[in-house]
Amino acid sequence: MSERGRVCLIVGAGDGLGGALARAFAREGLIVCMTRRPRNLDTLEALAQSIRDQGGTAHAFGIDAREEAEMIALVDRIEAEIGDLDVVCFNIGANVRFNITETTSRVYQKVWEMAAFAGFVAGREAARVMSPRGRGTIIFTGATASLRGREGFSAFAGAKHALRALAQSMARELGPKGVHVAHVLLDGMVQGQFIESIVPDYADRLARGDIIAVDEAARNWVWLWQQKPCAWTHELDLRPSRETW
Amino acid sequence: MSERGRVCLIVGAGDGLGGALARAFAREGLIVCMTRRPRNLDTLEALAQSIRDQGGTAHAFGIDAREEAEMIALVDRIEAEIGDLDVVCFNIGANVRFNITETTSRVYQKVWEMAAFAGFVAGREAARVMSPRGRGTIIFTGATASLRGREGFSAFAGAKHALRALAQSMARELGPKGVHVAHVLLDGMVQGQFIESIVPDYADRLARGDIIAVDEAARNWVWLWQQKPCAWTHELDLRPSRETW
Amino acid sequence: MSERGRVCLIVGAGDGLGGALARAFAREGLIVCMTRRPRNLDTLEALAQSIRDQGGTAHAFGIDAREEAEMIALVDRIEAEIGDLDVVCFNIGANVRFNITETTSRVYQKVWEMAAFAGFVAGREAARVMSPRGRGTIIFTGATASLRGREGFSAFAGAKHALRALAQSMARELGPKGVHVAHVLLDGMVQGQFIESIVPDYADRLARGDIIAVDEAARNWVWLWQQKPCAWTHELDLRPSRETW
Amino acid sequence: MSERGRVCLIVGAGDGLGGALARAFAREGLIVCMTRRPRNLDTLEALAQSIRDQGGTAHAFGIDAREEAEMIALVDRIEAEIGDLDVVCFNIGANVRFNITETTSRVYQKVWEMAAFAGFVAGREAARVMSPRGRGTIIFTGATASLRGREGFSAFAGAKHALRALAQSMARELGPKGVHVAHVLLDGMVQGQFIESIVPDYADRLARGDIIAVDEAARNWVWLWQQKPCAWTHELDLRPSRETW
Repeated sequence: MSERGRVCLIVGAGDGLGGALARAFAREGLIVCMTRRPRNLDTLEALAQSIRDQGGTAHAFGIDAREEAEMIALVDRIEAEIGDLDVVCFNIGANVRFNITETTSRVYQKVWEMAAFAGFVAGREAARVMSPRGRGTIIFTGATASLRGREGFSAFAGAKHALRALAQSMARELGPKGVHVAHVLLDGMVQGQFIESIVPDYADRLARGDIIAVDEAARNWVWLWQQKPCAWTHELDLRPSRETW
Repeated sequence: MSERGRVCLIVGAGDGLGGALARAFAREGLIVCMTRRPRNLDTLEALAQSIRDQGGTAHAFGIDAREEAEMIALVDRIEAEIGDLDVVCFNIGANVRFNITETTSRVYQKVWEMAAFAGFVAGREAARVMSPRGRGTIIFTGATASLRGREGFSAFAGAKHALRALAQSMARELGPKGVHVAHVLLDGMVQGQFIESIVPDYADRLARGDIIAVDEAARNWVWLWQQKPCAWTHELDLRPSRETW
Repeated sequence: MSERGRVCLIVGAGDGLGGALARAFAREGLIVCMTRRPRNLDTLEALAQSIRDQGGTAHAFGIDAREEAEMIALVDRIEAEIGDLDVVCFNIGANVRFNITETTSRVYQKVWEMAAFAGFVAGREAARVMSPRGRGTIIFTGATASLRGREGFSAFAGAKHALRALAQSMARELGPKGVHVAHVLLDGMVQGQFIESIVPDYADRLARGDIIAVDEAARNWVWLWQQKPCAWTHELDLRPSRETW
Repeated sequence: MSERGRVCLIVGAGDGLGGALARAFAREGLIVCMTRRPRNLDTLEALAQSIRDQGGTAHAFGIDAREEAEMIALVDRIEAEIGDLDVVCFNIGANVRFNITETTSRVYQKVWEMAAFAGFVAGREAARVMSPRGRGTIIFTGATASLRGREGFSAFAGAKHALRALAQSMARELGPKGVHVAHVLLDGMVQGQFIESIVPDYADRLARGDIIAVDEAARNWVWLWQQKPCAWTHELDLRPSRETW
């Protein structure tokens, strides 16, 4: 093992799950690198500072994850200046809902770029540096729409299905090379500003356990990272106990 | 019902399955409209002529199905000048195989544009004219990679998964409106120049039934179109009897 | 081809789908053999007579399909006295719904015996005579519960899942031997006395196409039987256009 | 919380995974109760003793898990004399492989009794005592055959599919009542005497991580038990990193 630090990269570290993943891996002693779009860099810096205040190490990067060159440069910079990428969590969503005839090609393409193409670039770049070392963990965030289409979900389910296909293809290719690729299916509402803005009794429901608490969810990412190679999980689902499914 | 002719549009009518679909629906009395890229328009015209020689009605259109404006214009022109779109078969594939680290973003994007985005545009435009009439059939061509990822299939499986999600989402949305959306899984080698070029004993294997004969496959598209609304199939698989799966 | 007649055996030929399957295959010129429990033999005889009145050939057998010896004897007798078994449709259901703590072991076992074990015996006996001839079609009737468990469905979904596993295992084993094994998923209400007894506006809904008409459904069994070996379907779903799924 | 001890019941505690589950939950401070068939009670007592030697609490019971009355009596006795059932792991397998025409009805039935019916009885009895308390965890051991049939697997896949349907049905019913039901898919060879007896280079492959080490696998059962209700997993797969799938 090198003396270099081990790095966890969170692609898409917003206010909800992404931030929780950053905190969780920082607590495990990893150097956390996080990305959001440049326009949200201030918020991301604040998150990094809060992790540093808790004794962790965290860096914030404002990049557009759909821009291949930016992702390549980020991975190269992390590997050159910060440490070995040990975990990469791809966590960009793009949940939209439109009837098929009201889905513009712009929406269809943009959702795919954010939720699938960016995942492909991040996953491939992770594979590029992890495969030669024969170690590393890559975890993609999935959703109910990863498993089946539904009225209004042509764009979102399409992108999430593509991301799942990527995770499966990479797992089968990289597992024998020592790189663990996993896909976590979030099947239910997830704590964060978006759900808070649309659910009237948010605080109550969160307290009752009807909304997935992000710190609780993030423990499962850490768990996947801790699994030994003789017993790796590729896909696990997470849902509130009272969820209908 | 209008006195106008009923039209079957085949998006992606190459030498293999697409041509067989055109012949099959022409035999059912539908006016067949077929697309290929402009550079293959001569070949497509020859196919149209051979259908006309058999007593059918067929039109060839050289368009790039990834170009939304071209597809919209084609559907508008068919509806204005030729007849009511009664069947739309989306049949563009893009079977490539690359290890993840050797998959360029250009390949990943192009495969998605051909096999998923073009399907979205064709499907949406079909829905646009079929939904108000409360009738019509839309059939997407799927593959083994529609169901699971595999080493080397990040791009292809991603696009095919997205297309399947589209088919499912559209089926759930449009079924209650009287439009039948189906997805056919071709699980095995399919008759055509591509397989002929890579399988040494092609003729023997085709004769033995180890390769899916396209005229035989096409009968299933016709079958789906003939199903009555009380018993519609959304997904069916087709594979040679001796196929390992 | 032998000069002997070709036989279609319907295991579980009640008032609904089973009877429709019998009529459909009789129209195709097959000799139809049908089973029901001995206590329903009178009804079954009436069905056979109605098929004969239409010009078909039909025989009724009162057996308990869960009794291996009876099924073996029936297959032997058909092969010896009537003709070659060319199609076997297994169509016994056992739709019950109980919460898990209210599911008695008697119910759990009986549902499995009817919907899974009897299917195993019928399928195996069909395979026994079809495999050496290298031809034949075996079709199992599935349901939504074949694909997923649900509250109240421990017994029924368990039996239907087992039947689907049987169909898949047999298809993979017998396909290369020339025997076509298929599984039809009925996803919706099916025409028949049971649904008639529980749906208030039954006649209206049937007329509107919201209930699967059995003669329409049965055409799909015939279709599967007619598929050529280069393009066999293993599983197809059937549901009304307006069904929510 | 009562002052009574909390109990983990392992139904099917053999030399492999079952023993590891017992050790793992004993380390978590649970009172471990284990069952095997009466004829293996000596071996099971030795396992219980080894757990006690490590400071744990363990009881061995020789019962036939297919006998409903024995399972009911065992659960009643544990609840009356030992403590609250907090975890029930159903871990009886019955991996056999026979071509369909060589599968006797005795084998088909026995495999189902062991791998599905016994799981139903254990699961239902666990639900009976857990539901009123609004807490508890029930975990079923699955396999690759839980997901798809395969040549030679009519019996085994049938039973495993039925068990998965049970797990799903129970999860959807009991989740809202506070009882966590999960299904673990073991996709690969599992450490134990059976695999040792058929794999030539067993020790090497185990050391290399090509065989699922049972202590490593068992940590995942403990993990599932520790998940909080806002983020429960219903199904997770475990396989060696180099497994082909």
